[in-house]
Amino acid sequence: MARTASLSGFPEWLPEERLVELHVLDTLRRIFELHGFSSIETRAVETLGQLLRKGEVDKEVYGLRRLQDEEGDGGNAAAPASGDPHALALHFDLTVPFARYVVENAGYLAFPFRRYQIQKVWRGERPQEGRAREFTQADIDVVGDGELPFRYDVEIALVIAEALSALPIPDFLLRINNRKLAEGFYNGIGLTDTAGVLRSIDKLEKIGPAKVAELLKSELGATDEQARSALELASIRTGDTSFVAEVRALGVSNDLLEEGLAELEQVIAAVVQRAPGKVVADLSIARGLDYYTGTVVETVLVGHEQLGSICSGGRYDALASKGSRTFPGVGLSIGVTRLVSRILSQNLARATRSVPTAVLVALTTDDSWGGAQDVAAALRSRGIATEVAAKAEKFGKQIKFAHRRGIPFVWFTDEEGNHQVKDIRSGEQVDADPTSWAPSGEDLHVRVRTA
Amino acid sequence: MARTASLSGFPEWLPEERLVELHVLDTLRRIFELHGFSSIETRAVETLGQLLRKGEVDKEVYGLRRLQDEEGDGGNAAAPASGDPHALALHFDLTVPFARYVVENAGYLAFPFRRYQIQKVWRGERPQEGRAREFTQADIDVVGDGELPFRYDVEIALVIAEALSALPIPDFLLRINNRKLAEGFYNGIGLTDTAGVLRSIDKLEKIGPAKVAELLKSELGATDEQARSALELASIRTGDTSFVAEVRALGVSNDLLEEGLAELEQVIAAVVQRAPGKVVADLSIARGLDYYTGTVVETVLVGHEQLGSICSGGRYDALASKGSRTFPGVGLSIGVTRLVSRILSQNLARATRSVPTAVLVALTTDDSWGGAQDVAAALRSRGIATEVAAKAEKFGKQIKFAHRRGIPFVWFTDEEGNHQVKDIRSGEQVDADPTSWAPSGEDLHVRVRTA
Repeated sequence: MARTASLSGFPEWLPEERLVELHVLDTLRRIFELHGFSSIETRAVETLGQLLRKGEVDKEVYGLRRLQDEEGDGGNAAAPASGDPHALALHFDLTVPFARYVVENAGYLAFPFRRYQIQKVWRGERPQEGRAREFTQADIDVVGDGELPFRYDVEIALVIAEALSALPIPDFLLRINNRKLAEGFYNGIGLTDTAGVLRSIDKLEKIGPAKVAELLKSELGATDEQARSALELASIRTGDTSFVAEVRALGVSNDLLEEGLAELEQVIAAVVQRAPGKVVADLSIARGLDYYTGTVVETVLVGHEQLGSICSGGRYDALASKGSRTFPGVGLSIGVTRLVSRILSQNLARATRSVPTAVLVALTTDDSWGGAQDVAAALRSRGIATEVAAKAEKFGKQIKFAHRRGIPFVWFTDEEGNHQVKDIRSGEQVDADPTSWAPSGEDLHVRVRTA
Repeated sequence: MARTASLSGFPEWLPEERLVELHVLDTLRRIFELHGFSSIETRAVETLGQLLRKGEVDKEVYGLRRLQDEEGDGGNAAAPASGDPHALALHFDLTVPFARYVVENAGYLAFPFRRYQIQKVWRGERPQEGRAREFTQADIDVVGDGELPFRYDVEIALVIAEALSALPIPDFLLRINNRKLAEGFYNGIGLTDTAGVLRSIDKLEKIGPAKVAELLKSELGATDEQARSALELASIRTGDTSFVAEVRALGVSNDLLEEGLAELEQVIAAVVQRAPGKVVADLSIARGLDYYTGTVVETVLVGHEQLGSICSGGRYDALASKGSRTFPGVGLSIGVTRLVSRILSQNLARATRSVPTAVLVALTTDDSWGGAQDVAAALRSRGIATEVAAKAEKFGKQIKFAHRRGIPFVWFTDEEGNHQVKDIRSGEQVDADPTSWAPSGEDLHVRVRTA
């Protein structure tokens, strides 16, 4: 399983590894749908104009062009240049495409609109552990038309805690903060460039508090006292709502701060109650450069912190707008490929077998293929995945083939039409009726188990 | 539903349309897995060197480049040129990537290897009905190491007939031919450029027999008699194995022809038996320019013939090779987007509701949100998709919201903790217990029904 991708940054799974990924995807889908989220997919490409609405050309973007465009049919035909907003490029996340989708289809959607979206995205970054050039994200968002009650922030956190709890992964911890809390606090201590403070605080894990203090002073003109206060706030980390008292103890008073405290308290209280041990109020979480306006979330796998966040997101008051209409939202994005890569590389979970097949129907003679197909059809009609041998080789050879494929049962029908089925793991062989025999629930489908 | 894509050739579905697509994808996956096919996915990109192994640069290919590559890290950084085999491009089918995957992972796969692969592919063609620039294909293939018994040709046809029969689509017809039969026949009548003859025959539906006869004579030097014979063969079309007698009546004798007749007879006999009315031996099917070497298949939707083939493929004796090792295969590819587009544009099937949610838990007071979450959790634990209202608006407003979203049931809990559930379609409201109430099987999950 330590194969390396033949193209760096573009991982591909073997069939038994793909079973683990499918299990992760199926589990996420099941939980999202149980909570009433609708599936959507958006096209893989956006126009550069859409992708770059938030600013300048990002070097992570893959541009597209039709290789031989003898017809010269306009905009997207030429090599994309940063100056051509109609040129096409692959999407680098699922939020920008979702925003466009909401605006384009606003007339057809019932708001608040709940959707999940599980798709590949592409970034031309230098590949490293946990960072691929092609990877799968699983996003959930709730988007309102004009307004979106805060309660959805709480709900999104609960849904994600439930979804991650259902995956074959180690313990995780949602680290949650609130932008209003942080910005209100900075304002309260007289630091008005809150975006600048957030950008510095965002570097805490990378460069440590001493260097962040220097940055605050040198770049933002903070006093010793202001820098100390900002760092004190960022050092607060509680597994319950006691962060409220800790913040208050810092003696800063500000309306926005109070609003943020109340919001974060609601989220933390709800997750502590419904997913105990899975959440921490972490006032160092900044998600510096993004468009978040309230709740912000990052998630670590306990014992795998160096992997980076496996699930991030938050509240944005203007995901998109259409004329005077704005669409606020709250959402989280799970890094599926990052999670699955880690599960596979560290053998954290594996499939109970390598193929979907439960039964191989052996051939007694080459002419028995039709009868073997009848047996297979009877089994399949009851949901038992079955394949039929292609040649009447010696039984030992057919059993070996099943073993090599990872198929647990081999079915035999003799020339009188008597049926037997052999569990090739135990060697046990019993009489069986194709219209009623079934493997145990354990063996019916492939399962994925944590190691 | 008559929305047009905001980017021509890149269709996107509304949530209720996506439910139809999901149903199609889930059905295909279920049937493929019941037959023991393993899921794999390959990366969306291939090197130009891989994509173009079969010949020159195809103008349908979308090349990729990193938009701002200040680092200049080599091959795939630059705008792809047809001369740079390391440049990246989006795959245009799932066969070429699968061939590469088999060669790269041959040491990890058990042959004959059965896989299904459901992914998007991209072609820069001019969009038209049934032809998109981004679309989903669902492929199944069986690939052998060195050899692959012919029986897999029969099996693949049976699996596809079963899969298509399970979809919410009109009647379909598998049109099957065999390259050995055709080539043997052409050789038997003295036409040796069999590829050339196939290319001409492939144009039959487009230009008609008179023009094909002209082509055969002008381009391939066929005599009147040879052209007449070739067209006679191509006119044979039988819903059973009687094509064998019809071909024999043409009086041509050739070993390869006999081999092809025997193969096609086996395929047709098996499908007639197991999927009656779904197959025709159609000796005009040529699939002119492809790499097929035996069985060839196209599939039409009855009454929608102008849509083109919705499922095509066949046998290829060398899908891939690695040194002296060759990997023969047989496979078919379903055009999922073509099918789903047609289902949606002609309203052939639709989802029973527009969201996964079965129940909306209404709020009596804003403080009852926690209790409402408990009700929702009890329902979800039994597989009932449930969402909770975000605000304690008037019940009429909450019911209207459910109606607008397409949610069939609304749950009420009064301040004494008594529960009732209302079917908002019939207006019927009954006492209910969150630990035991369930909607009917019909209402539990979204279903997709043919119109």
